[in-house]
Amino acid sequence: MTAYTEGRTMHSSPHEHGGALHQHGGAPHGARSVARHRAAVAELLAPLLTEARAETLALRDALGKGLAHDIAAPLSLPPFANSQMDGFAINSAHVPDGGAELRTVDPVPAGATPAALERGCAAPIMTGAMIPDGADAVVPVEQAVPDRFPAPGVAGTVWLPATAAGTFVRAAGSDIRAGERALAAGTFLGPAQLGLLAALGIGEVTVHRTVTVLLATTGDEVVEPGRPLPAGKIYDSNGTLLESALRQAGLAVVRTAIASDRPEELRALLRSHAGSVDLIVTTGGVSKGAYEVVRQAMDGQAAEFVHVAMQPGGPQGIGTFDGVPFLGFPGNPVSCLVSFEMFLRPVLAGMFGSPAPRTAVPARLAHSLTSPEHKHQVRRGSYQADGTVRLEGGDSSHLMHALAGSNALVHVPAGVSALAEGDEVEVWML
Amino acid sequence: MTAYTEGRTMHSSPHEHGGALHQHGGAPHGARSVARHRAAVAELLAPLLTEARAETLALRDALGKGLAHDIAAPLSLPPFANSQMDGFAINSAHVPDGGAELRTVDPVPAGATPAALERGCAAPIMTGAMIPDGADAVVPVEQAVPDRFPAPGVAGTVWLPATAAGTFVRAAGSDIRAGERALAAGTFLGPAQLGLLAALGIGEVTVHRTVTVLLATTGDEVVEPGRPLPAGKIYDSNGTLLESALRQAGLAVVRTAIASDRPEELRALLRSHAGSVDLIVTTGGVSKGAYEVVRQAMDGQAAEFVHVAMQPGGPQGIGTFDGVPFLGFPGNPVSCLVSFEMFLRPVLAGMFGSPAPRTAVPARLAHSLTSPEHKHQVRRGSYQADGTVRLEGGDSSHLMHALAGSNALVHVPAGVSALAEGDEVEVWML
Repeated sequence: MTAYTEGRTMHSSPHEHGGALHQHGGAPHGARSVARHRAAVAELLAPLLTEARAETLALRDALGKGLAHDIAAPLSLPPFANSQMDGFAINSAHVPDGGAELRTVDPVPAGATPAALERGCAAPIMTGAMIPDGADAVVPVEQAVPDRFPAPGVAGTVWLPATAAGTFVRAAGSDIRAGERALAAGTFLGPAQLGLLAALGIGEVTVHRTVTVLLATTGDEVVEPGRPLPAGKIYDSNGTLLESALRQAGLAVVRTAIASDRPEELRALLRSHAGSVDLIVTTGGVSKGAYEVVRQAMDGQAAEFVHVAMQPGGPQGIGTFDGVPFLGFPGNPVSCLVSFEMFLRPVLAGMFGSPAPRTAVPARLAHSLTSPEHKHQVRRGSYQADGTVRLEGGDSSHLMHALAGSNALVHVPAGVSALAEGDEVEVWML
Repeated sequence: MTAYTEGRTMHSSPHEHGGALHQHGGAPHGARSVARHRAAVAELLAPLLTEARAETLALRDALGKGLAHDIAAPLSLPPFANSQMDGFAINSAHVPDGGAELRTVDPVPAGATPAALERGCAAPIMTGAMIPDGADAVVPVEQAVPDRFPAPGVAGTVWLPATAAGTFVRAAGSDIRAGERALAAGTFLGPAQLGLLAALGIGEVTVHRTVTVLLATTGDEVVEPGRPLPAGKIYDSNGTLLESALRQAGLAVVRTAIASDRPEELRALLRSHAGSVDLIVTTGGVSKGAYEVVRQAMDGQAAEFVHVAMQPGGPQGIGTFDGVPFLGFPGNPVSCLVSFEMFLRPVLAGMFGSPAPRTAVPARLAHSLTSPEHKHQVRRGSYQADGTVRLEGGDSSHLMHALAGSNALVHVPAGVSALAEGDEVEVWML
């Protein structure tokens, strides 16, 4: 697979080691585009899209999963013509313009199979009940004289106005016809999609099996929340942030203890789990500082460490560890989340239909902004109901509080170096 | 509580029974507004908002829940001034405009507590590492001559350009200061909010306990998916649709078998579960036809059956059953989902911060539409990335396939009877 060959080459190339310039701020000559890195992630994960990973589940267990195959409607919806109102079923041809007095027959409750309607008769009918043979319209009860239903079993008459054929009748197949495609492979199964399958009488559905991710956060400087914080250290937020994001997206997560900055320890940690997961995600240790534990731990593996023309989240690792797909996200929390949202989520959504892709919304900037011209900048913001978006915090990737106050990612594509208040941007709703 | 007293009155009032007109199409004289019914739902559920229902959970178990109390930051973020770059920490006052050759001291890795910086020295420093006392700026490594770090332990010099104080330094507290409010009570705890708590060293959080809903779908005409479908019957989609919507919103659901149209059976079914749930939701049997099992089962309970000026979802039941809060949604699937999204979800979101409220987005209509002037119409549509919304299916509440193809609810407020292509509407993203 090209990416990894190229990876091994680049990893040991002088270009790469002399390439600190690509890392920070400056011109990203040699950096790869967001689209190209997303394509590499798709290539990396493509082997997960196999029939062997499909499973058949009861509807209630399929919530939030992606549909594995197209589903054709086994029956039409509605299955039979039924009434949209509580009223009287009539044959429109038998009621002249001036209206008519008709004999009322036995009422038709929902769920019953009514007798055919005789000429000169009207059948009291409930919402959802089957239209009798010979009837082609429903007159709402409030248009009848008298405007109520006759007492059951009592023979009587009712005056009804002339009504066009089809009035308040839900035709069989007016929602979907038997044999039509009800849902396409790769559809995210939310309440409405599962509700449709239930309406079609389908009790089980074949979905893509949940992807299991090994999540390893690294760094001698990070400490588990709840422990004391020595000088110079920070609490690990990447683990909680990414585990929550992965789980919210419907992925299964195996989370390891924080790995130290000793490559052999990280290697052993990954080996101890690699056999039981579909994907390894690490945070930190991928840039070009003097202490980059993930780069060192992946030495000799089919992995490359690249710089994507994106801010934040430029430094990225990608490849395999002992044959298991591997993604190395940067060490800053915002960079981690942006890496997940920009690369892993859209690729999984495209392949499996789950997680659901983010909703892209055009918004007007509430402030001006600047952006490195050659990078795709991803800012955090709060989208307002009036269609504007306020930026939260600056462009720095350490601003967790600002991220927690945001509900959207704000995209400033490569090639744009400044935008004014009121300019339109694409935002993704978080 | 007014609503229920009024309920008992209305339930047995001739006005109510003569009121079929309020039900269908015509002028909704006597119908209650969406806002008023939402307020009644809020009043009904208010007793659930008690300290007794708060629980303290580990961060990973709090995903998707609502924060019970404000949380103040126990420390500042970042906790100490640190470097935003791999580079050299300097005292900006000691580097003249022309730059200077400085002695390199021991490098500062992330997590370490560096010695104070002496005059004439530069400290190689990694991203995230603590800025030494006496230093006030960082020069990125690629601006240094030579543009790389000295070998550890080797005394050497580096030429660095003049740099303004504060350059590439993340000041302590620049994200949030100790004592400031980090998160407000009622905040939905998603990945970013949990990540912030982790960054603050907080390992446990007090949230509102999950609300448990008893879901009972009714009707002699509905059949469980997977069974054969007799003539005149339909498959139950409400149960799957609503259970999925409630669970996706983070609620716990107890789902009963489909209740028959015999009121005493429904009453027994509700009694058998009422003790163990926070809320009873039924579907169907709330309108004014001749066979309305929920209305009949609730006879003598503190419940009312009202008509809300909304389409679909006009007929609504509200009150208590044996003292347990009760909501009676209409029988059509789309009406059920609209009832949940318009009344239950926003009320719970407002009270508990969970489920997350829907995102409201202004959109331009891709088609013209008409709407009953005195009702709030809720159409289904697919929102497009260009900011337009296409209507899916008609206004009829039986269109499950159209609902499954939608990603948004389209609001046409009361007072509006027609809109043209291109007119702006508010949509809620599903």
